[in-house]
Amino acid sequence: MTPNPGDRVRVERAGVADEGVLMPSSDADHLVLKLDGGYNVGVDRDAAAVELLERDARDVGEDERSESSKRARSDTTREHPGEGDDDASAVEFDDDLPTVALISTGGTIASTVDYRTGAVTARFDAEDVLRAVPDLAGRANYRGRVVANILSENMEPRVWRDLAEAVREEVEAGDTPVPVVFTGSQRSADRPSSDNVMNAVCAVEAAKSDCSEVLVCMHATPSDDHCALHRGTRVRKNHTSRRDAFETVGARPLGRVTYGDEVAVEFRADTPYARRGDGDLALAPDLADDVELVKFTPGMDPAALGYLDGKSGVVIEGTGLGHVHTDLIPRLEALVDDGTTVVMTSQCLEGRVCDRVYDTGRDLLEAGVVEAGDTLPGTATVKLMWALANVADPADAMGRNLAGELTAESRPWG
Amino acid sequence: MTPNPGDRVRVERAGVADEGVLMPSSDADHLVLKLDGGYNVGVDRDAAAVELLERDARDVGEDERSESSKRARSDTTREHPGEGDDDASAVEFDDDLPTVALISTGGTIASTVDYRTGAVTARFDAEDVLRAVPDLAGRANYRGRVVANILSENMEPRVWRDLAEAVREEVEAGDTPVPVVFTGSQRSADRPSSDNVMNAVCAVEAAKSDCSEVLVCMHATPSDDHCALHRGTRVRKNHTSRRDAFETVGARPLGRVTYGDEVAVEFRADTPYARRGDGDLALAPDLADDVELVKFTPGMDPAALGYLDGKSGVVIEGTGLGHVHTDLIPRLEALVDDGTTVVMTSQCLEGRVCDRVYDTGRDLLEAGVVEAGDTLPGTATVKLMWALANVADPADAMGRNLAGELTAESRPWG
Repeated sequence: MTPNPGDRVRVERAGVADEGVLMPSSDADHLVLKLDGGYNVGVDRDAAAVELLERDARDVGEDERSESSKRARSDTTREHPGEGDDDASAVEFDDDLPTVALISTGGTIASTVDYRTGAVTARFDAEDVLRAVPDLAGRANYRGRVVANILSENMEPRVWRDLAEAVREEVEAGDTPVPVVFTGSQRSADRPSSDNVMNAVCAVEAAKSDCSEVLVCMHATPSDDHCALHRGTRVRKNHTSRRDAFETVGARPLGRVTYGDEVAVEFRADTPYARRGDGDLALAPDLADDVELVKFTPGMDPAALGYLDGKSGVVIEGTGLGHVHTDLIPRLEALVDDGTTVVMTSQCLEGRVCDRVYDTGRDLLEAGVVEAGDTLPGTATVKLMWALANVADPADAMGRNLAGELTAESRPWG
Repeated sequence: MTPNPGDRVRVERAGVADEGVLMPSSDADHLVLKLDGGYNVGVDRDAAAVELLERDARDVGEDERSESSKRARSDTTREHPGEGDDDASAVEFDDDLPTVALISTGGTIASTVDYRTGAVTARFDAEDVLRAVPDLAGRANYRGRVVANILSENMEPRVWRDLAEAVREEVEAGDTPVPVVFTGSQRSADRPSSDNVMNAVCAVEAAKSDCSEVLVCMHATPSDDHCALHRGTRVRKNHTSRRDAFETVGARPLGRVTYGDEVAVEFRADTPYARRGDGDLALAPDLADDVELVKFTPGMDPAALGYLDGKSGVVIEGTGLGHVHTDLIPRLEALVDDGTTVVMTSQCLEGRVCDRVYDTGRDLLEAGVVEAGDTLPGTATVKLMWALANVADPADAMGRNLAGELTAESRPWG
């Protein structure tokens, strides 16, 4: 019997024996084995003897299951399909609990079933999460839906738009603007140090709060003590792997969710935020897809800007207060003259751009480059995509605060 | 008499009167006035009455002075030229003091004479600094030289090379490797809050220390209490305008310089660093100029990578653990196949890339993309420029620590 990806195998070569799960990245020449400690080992097929120890229990019916979970919309009042899932528990609808919609796009928090193949791949639907995080039971009634099933690096404006539409539909079912809480995990559920349970529980509690902002709820410290509630427009992933990788930049988090016997949501008293019922639901989901974020670097080839002709918008990640090499300014001016909205941000990340200070900065302003204040480069890019598709004067919009992304103007020095 | 840039004027229009310094960015149609508060005001010439209040005292002989300060090399044992500079003091050579070479490239710390024109422009030579920072006297004998006179956004690999050559010449004059201390200022000397004096004094004291690393010496806090000594390979400008904008990323600063009645240099006991005399001076200043740093962003047009054909090296600033959109991987593979060294870093800045975790990451490794561990993207770019010009196996070099830019490998989760 030939082992397939997901099967547990023993591999011997040159007197060394390893046990682990065969991974899908194995090919005709190489086996890739995930060891129990989490590390992967590559082995030449020719030089190795492979023994099948245990067939992947989930192999049967896998294809059908994947299909049915795509674009699925499932109420948890309906029983889980089961398929050999002994601990799958039916969750009854509870009139005393609020209803929280779980909308998924895939990613690490979705990779709860990946020990199956030994690799971390993207798989998820709302019921997967409920099975993976039993602690969510009793906190809310859930509606699950899958908007996409992708890893984060494959996120695209198209998915953001679908996500916005899905959020609108879910919010409309509940009548008034409510918290829109993003969460995820830095480590998949099969790791002892996974952050998925705490992040998911805290996110659900934050979704029940009186806030109606878009929040990101992730570990605030390396410990399992509380999650931070970051404003979506000011959050950034500042570490590749830590559980507390996400941080609010240029402000403080709006609040936190303490995690213990009690899970409690607290908002900062000194930072105003939008509340449930403060406004009516309004969504303008169109995005101009042809907006590019370009980072300026010393020695950059001017040809790097060559592909920008005809784009609706360009966001520059400049140095310091918002600079690029003097030689690039005429190119930016030509883009502006041709109708491209060109916006300046800073790769410093903290602080605001201010091109009134130096000669070259004033040249940029004269070229028609628009300053984004202290808007983060990534946020400025999405905002510009939105502004170009939805408002009459996108350049003007970049100078106005819409959702906490642009703080009141301050002098660049005190 | 027509007012010239640098002259103090009074401008009246529509019943409003402003006094300030006329700026060089004035043109045939507009006057630009720098008000005493530091703000600039633009005024239509046609609508304004302009009165000359005070001629710029430095106007006479200005051109000659600029010429002579270019590429000047001056020992402070020689008297300052003076030219109406009442407080210029001659500094005698003191046998009991060490000699510190001051090498300048321009920038904000060089803009000490800019109140003259009202604008911040780049002007500097070593004697300017001694005039501007009398506190430097008595701490060392100085040799001054100007390598470039540019604002930082115009920095280029060519200037880095010139700078390296200049440093070699200066170090060779002193025999053994010594501290190479970079400093600068966030606010020009004519601002009450300028950081130039403290930064310059602390940098000179750091240059007298027993360390032989490349350091960046800048304010460590918003107060004037101490400067941090950052390792050059791990420092980043993390704020657009704060005096403590520069921070060590992914490590701790090597030390600090306390600033008060005593100026004291302290290195951390728990962080090894290279000392004077530890090695011989070795410089390999060649850089491959055609190395590009490209930031990956969601929705990025694949055409952004179109200009990279034939480049010696490309550094990608990926997401998270080191990712790009799956659709871009074949393009990176084609670059590698054509001989370009492609290196992966993370825009998270903190933490290390690790492409063994996810399918798409492994695809990148199979495509021949080289991981730069926790090397910062900008550092990785300069290192790759150096490696391509100086070592037989640049890809291998990117995985080895040379100067603190790459810390010992750690598991991406604990």
